[in-house]
Amino acid sequence: MSNTRIVTAAMLAIGDELLSGRTKDKNIGHLAEMLTMIGIDLREVRIVADDEEAIVDAVNALRQRYDHVFTSGGIGPTHDDITADAMAKAFGLNCIHDPKAMELLGAMYERRGMEFTEARRRMARMPAGAIHIPNPVSTAPGFRVGNVYVMAGVPQVFQAMLDTLLPSLETGTPVLSRTVRSPYGEGDIGGPLTEVQRNHPETSIGSYPKFDGKSFSTDIVIRARDAVALAAAEVDVTAMIEAIAQSR
Amino acid sequence: MSNTRIVTAAMLAIGDELLSGRTKDKNIGHLAEMLTMIGIDLREVRIVADDEEAIVDAVNALRQRYDHVFTSGGIGPTHDDITADAMAKAFGLNCIHDPKAMELLGAMYERRGMEFTEARRRMARMPAGAIHIPNPVSTAPGFRVGNVYVMAGVPQVFQAMLDTLLPSLETGTPVLSRTVRSPYGEGDIGGPLTEVQRNHPETSIGSYPKFDGKSFSTDIVIRARDAVALAAAEVDVTAMIEAIAQSR
Repeated sequence: MSNTRIVTAAMLAIGDELLSGRTKDKNIGHLAEMLTMIGIDLREVRIVADDEEAIVDAVNALRQRYDHVFTSGGIGPTHDDITADAMAKAFGLNCIHDPKAMELLGAMYERRGMEFTEARRRMARMPAGAIHIPNPVSTAPGFRVGNVYVMAGVPQVFQAMLDTLLPSLETGTPVLSRTVRSPYGEGDIGGPLTEVQRNHPETSIGSYPKFDGKSFSTDIVIRARDAVALAAAEVDVTAMIEAIAQSR
Repeated sequence: MSNTRIVTAAMLAIGDELLSGRTKDKNIGHLAEMLTMIGIDLREVRIVADDEEAIVDAVNALRQRYDHVFTSGGIGPTHDDITADAMAKAFGLNCIHDPKAMELLGAMYERRGMEFTEARRRMARMPAGAIHIPNPVSTAPGFRVGNVYVMAGVPQVFQAMLDTLLPSLETGTPVLSRTVRSPYGEGDIGGPLTEVQRNHPETSIGSYPKFDGKSFSTDIVIRARDAVALAAAEVDVTAMIEAIAQSR
């Protein structure tokens, strides 16, 4: 395991609507899956309101603690879209109408015969020196500043931006996982599973209870960066479940 | 508005599976809806792994900042269920096998002719002096310590615990909301909507773009604790959309 490289990340989802329950977030689960696939460990997620101080505090805490920070939301054209200003403030940079973004958006609205209003110009705002994250869906770019990747909240746009971004990221050794389904609840497997975990310290074994309205079963998920360690733990988890079955 | 009372809350969702993407969280959106309904402002959500230090840091940050903190996950019987210990550590309390919880669980397993294993006894662990949150689904209680409410991660159990808990909470003046659907994207409404917001400072107006694969429309959500202020802003938002329609 000497070549194992760990790369960490956090997500900051921004938006009043996520905290009022009006909108159910779809970006967190998607980002989590994508990062797991490419070998980046998502360690923490925060959801905050469209509130400058809350955004600044959260992004400053997260960007110092993790290798990458991904944000969603608040980069549209309306008065409650304040993420670009908050990012500039967090980094001590000016928030400007980025010339390249102004060009991109201006050309797009001209092609479509639409007015490039002051509201639409807001979508070109970003901290001075920020690098664009292309938006293949609706043109207005996201941006990167330092280790923070600022993306849209609309899931189709968030996902498209993430797709353009991921190939460029520094990644780590992917975590492999195997799921063993147990017909027994956590109360039955908790004792022996603790033993299995103790015997396989290179793996991380989680158990996730499921309730079908009558009784509990459990998904046992074994995770490891090393395939041999993973397989060895899987053998022991499977043997553990067979032993419980035979004792009944 | 002199009688307005603001009560704030945060949520801490605990579990590796939420950060790996294996499980899509269902509790955050549910809690957000329920709190909005009874007049508690959910201000921040954090998701952390089954990691003692991460849980302790997060709960200590949140419980000092908000009136109520709700947690989900990590109170089952397996080795990766460490929430009770983490809460005890955060509050500087001993984590004990709560006598009343031991009795409840012992009686339940006896009725069902099942062994009260060491793993199952783990579900009775909580910080000394904690107050039970009843679990009508599967007996093992959640608990309250200080202003922190510790609940299960399985959505059916989380929701049932929350239902028993909510009537006892101090709540604030509920936020009322009205949604006006705009067939125009945010670029068209952004300018005039900023004006409307400026003229209605007692309300908070959010705009939420929707993308149907071809074009954007917008839901405009007006929120206020005062019904008269809400209605006045709604009139102006509706008039704004009619003005845009007539200008085309």
